[in-house]
Amino acid sequence: MEKRILLTECADATGLIAAITQICFQRHLNVIRQDQFASHEDQKFFMRSVLEGDFGEEQEIIDAVTAVLPPGARVRLSDNRRRRLCVLVTKESHCLGELLMKCYSGALNADIVKVAGNYPDLGPLAAKFEVPFEVVPHQDISREEHEERLMRVVDETKADYVVLAKYMRILSPRFVGHYPLGKLINIHHSFLPAFMGAKPYYQAFTRGVKLIGATAHFVTDNLDEGPIIEQDVIKVNHRYDPETLAKAGHDVEQMVLTRALTKILDDKVFIHGNKTVVF
Amino acid sequence: MEKRILLTECADATGLIAAITQICFQRHLNVIRQDQFASHEDQKFFMRSVLEGDFGEEQEIIDAVTAVLPPGARVRLSDNRRRRLCVLVTKESHCLGELLMKCYSGALNADIVKVAGNYPDLGPLAAKFEVPFEVVPHQDISREEHEERLMRVVDETKADYVVLAKYMRILSPRFVGHYPLGKLINIHHSFLPAFMGAKPYYQAFTRGVKLIGATAHFVTDNLDEGPIIEQDVIKVNHRYDPETLAKAGHDVEQMVLTRALTKILDDKVFIHGNKTVVF
Amino acid sequence: MEKRILLTECADATGLIAAITQICFQRHLNVIRQDQFASHEDQKFFMRSVLEGDFGEEQEIIDAVTAVLPPGARVRLSDNRRRRLCVLVTKESHCLGELLMKCYSGALNADIVKVAGNYPDLGPLAAKFEVPFEVVPHQDISREEHEERLMRVVDETKADYVVLAKYMRILSPRFVGHYPLGKLINIHHSFLPAFMGAKPYYQAFTRGVKLIGATAHFVTDNLDEGPIIEQDVIKVNHRYDPETLAKAGHDVEQMVLTRALTKILDDKVFIHGNKTVVF
Amino acid sequence: MEKRILLTECADATGLIAAITQICFQRHLNVIRQDQFASHEDQKFFMRSVLEGDFGEEQEIIDAVTAVLPPGARVRLSDNRRRRLCVLVTKESHCLGELLMKCYSGALNADIVKVAGNYPDLGPLAAKFEVPFEVVPHQDISREEHEERLMRVVDETKADYVVLAKYMRILSPRFVGHYPLGKLINIHHSFLPAFMGAKPYYQAFTRGVKLIGATAHFVTDNLDEGPIIEQDVIKVNHRYDPETLAKAGHDVEQMVLTRALTKILDDKVFIHGNKTVVF
Repeated sequence: MEKRILLTECADATGLIAAITQICFQRHLNVIRQDQFASHEDQKFFMRSVLEGDFGEEQEIIDAVTAVLPPGARVRLSDNRRRRLCVLVTKESHCLGELLMKCYSGALNADIVKVAGNYPDLGPLAAKFEVPFEVVPHQDISREEHEERLMRVVDETKADYVVLAKYMRILSPRFVGHYPLGKLINIHHSFLPAFMGAKPYYQAFTRGVKLIGATAHFVTDNLDEGPIIEQDVIKVNHRYDPETLAKAGHDVEQMVLTRALTKILDDKVFIHGNKTVVF
Repeated sequence: MEKRILLTECADATGLIAAITQICFQRHLNVIRQDQFASHEDQKFFMRSVLEGDFGEEQEIIDAVTAVLPPGARVRLSDNRRRRLCVLVTKESHCLGELLMKCYSGALNADIVKVAGNYPDLGPLAAKFEVPFEVVPHQDISREEHEERLMRVVDETKADYVVLAKYMRILSPRFVGHYPLGKLINIHHSFLPAFMGAKPYYQAFTRGVKLIGATAHFVTDNLDEGPIIEQDVIKVNHRYDPETLAKAGHDVEQMVLTRALTKILDDKVFIHGNKTVVF
Repeated sequence: MEKRILLTECADATGLIAAITQICFQRHLNVIRQDQFASHEDQKFFMRSVLEGDFGEEQEIIDAVTAVLPPGARVRLSDNRRRRLCVLVTKESHCLGELLMKCYSGALNADIVKVAGNYPDLGPLAAKFEVPFEVVPHQDISREEHEERLMRVVDETKADYVVLAKYMRILSPRFVGHYPLGKLINIHHSFLPAFMGAKPYYQAFTRGVKLIGATAHFVTDNLDEGPIIEQDVIKVNHRYDPETLAKAGHDVEQMVLTRALTKILDDKVFIHGNKTVVF
Repeated sequence: MEKRILLTECADATGLIAAITQICFQRHLNVIRQDQFASHEDQKFFMRSVLEGDFGEEQEIIDAVTAVLPPGARVRLSDNRRRRLCVLVTKESHCLGELLMKCYSGALNADIVKVAGNYPDLGPLAAKFEVPFEVVPHQDISREEHEERLMRVVDETKADYVVLAKYMRILSPRFVGHYPLGKLINIHHSFLPAFMGAKPYYQAFTRGVKLIGATAHFVTDNLDEGPIIEQDVIKVNHRYDPETLAKAGHDVEQMVLTRALTKILDDKVFIHGNKTVVF
């Protein structure tokens, strides 16, 4: 008995659940778990079904499901294989360290196939886990040239996802547009949309907030404005300065990033316009 | 177009979702939202479907659904009408006050039809909201006689749910057994199973915990051991004594109780052995 | 034995704690609890000392403490008497209801001496608790004239604090400037600085955040930019629409507001530039 | 200018803060931050003062402070040097991994000088960070002999703290008594006192709780009953089974453990009977 995840996205209509589950039933595919969501605002339908059984020819199932859905439907059958991650970093080690640890222990169903940094600082950390590290320095070259090189490094990895694990440079629309929406994942060190842009902990200190947070989101052209996958906060008080805020924030950053990745690797995240559906 | 909630509980089997949604589809009942859960441990299936359409004869739908399910299935069609609550209290006002306010504002889809207390203290509060209050004193009579009177008061209300809103007396198995499981709801002032029984805040102080909490649960024969519906905690520290712990805990108690009731009134709570499924 | 709270604010200097506690010791005033904070950024010192003993002539103590502090110090001796609140409202009842309940039960050490609304909707709720209610309608008159009337109503109450409990109109700098900083307290229905201004729940829905929150802050000329006293959040997901976000947010709004007021009424809040020190 | 932390514990009395801060002031030691707590229940006084200045002969300061305190006082002057940790493990890697990462990055002000496990599984992980690992197998020998060997390994490290990072064997009173209270720190995978003893996630699953948590505490003779340093929880629901509860709990375990250690390494934790004071 195999397990697969059927992922369906289409325009909402009456009878979709009945139609899809009927197809599964006819093929003796048991529904272990299923979640669905129909958006009221724009009439979109999303469904994730964990199926168990003998799948035979997968494309045949996808075609059968697609045939009963409205035009323009997107149907996938995920095999939940171990995905390939390419991680971009600068100098801070906590997010990369957590990703390395969680891939090492198997808590994340993924392999980090490459770490690329605009500084060499995190090379030794990647090396501890025998992950190839490549410095792509941005000094003395144009942004365009730097991103060109970075793209080349990333593309060679054939990674399923590119994770910006405290990568502290803004990526140009050209770089972002080179990848399909949903492939680039960023962790931003604030509870967006508060404190977009640079130095969020300094902004938080200046504003005197009583909470700091972190946001994992898909990257789009608009800096820090892509679809949010996961957010969390911790309480702070007047005793914190920008440095201790940053230190306290590291824990919530690495936790939010790995929670978001866990959801993505479990195929629980759909992109819905500029938002996400997370089952 | 009417809205109803179809609630299904039965032994798990292949094709249940397909079978039920097919029946809805044939009757042109649109599924607005649906949640389902199959327990691995004992193979039970639970489903809650929010349907929209023309329902015709409700019993006919229930019978049709029941016919495609394994024997012993329980199928209900909820009309989401405003429910009747009977609230039992002692002296503390915060939970009752919150329930009165939330029923008054419409945040809870229910009417408090009676408040009964073993002390008269909260009579004036109930009176502010024109809710009948009845003192059922426990002094100078046996536990049996006291509960006899209390049952009479409760039964006259024809309440859908009996809410123990900081009712500080232990109810005997005889009282509890007089009502179906799921009708009596208690708020306990600890994160159960920690600090069962009397004086949980004093126990928490003595143990030196760094969190205190509250638990809303259905009442069973075993004190504080019924199915848990909702729990939450707040952080505390060494500066708290039993009195300030209790004061701080009031907020989480009233919040947990009203969250649990909101879920119940939305027909989102199933009892599953000694646990709950909360959609 | 009386209890008083000594509140000290001044420029930071060496030996302040020693100097102040020495004065208390000489007068046989025992320090039950003390908190202090020295800001690194602008060298300000804040201290709150709960004292027990025979205070004699209070002004004499204040003068003695002031004498050992740098010029410009602010020294107060709070008697922790029950404060007077004037509450401004519009149509939503949950924050007012919670304040009425918490003053009624004694959980808040304050009396609501007046509720003023720009709509009459909450008059009946105030009446339940025998609190005078006054409608100050804004229709058909200029903003200036409306605020003039509102100020008159507020000023007559001789309130210690004016609480904007979901008062849905922007107050002009003239109104705000009529009161000392620290007297006007607002609850904003977002985790500021996210979603300033109008319709934060609609903004939150549009942005697709996974958290919503509330912020209690002192009111300044700049809308939603005054010193933050307390903030909290709750988790939400893709199923929420603006209406259900608002409903879910009510609980966190009323909780954050009453937590902030509890701190203020305990004399635990100092204003520090555009921030607060909350002990 | 040096920085030191003055730690004071004694019977409570009037004028303690004045007396101690007077001594600091006379020596031109500036108080950067100070926290104090007097317990009402047993009249104990705790103070932590971060001092800046020229400390000269440290023992002289300690003696001067001790001289003004009630008999039996404990006075220490911490230099906040990097502490030595000995970590005990079994097979689970997440807590050890987080400790290794946080010591490597400098987030924890400590060095792991040895990892000892009753299984060899985590040797390769320790090796990545060049930390000596020693297997002390418990098979085929008596508990007494096993603990004897473990003590020898631990004692050789001259560690300041021994951290049980998911060490899954119960330590005998003899082992525990070999070390001073406060030296052994354990992470337990439940919000104690709920689910003491073995298999807390299985217990949590069986009870149907809606929260799971973790507790960092000092180890005493009574299993899972030592002074609690830090606790936290995360929300769970009916979909979790013992295995997914455990997986979800890993994050809160490693976070609670490192938060507790951060507090300990900052000299912010006092033991107060069977509780802690955490500044």
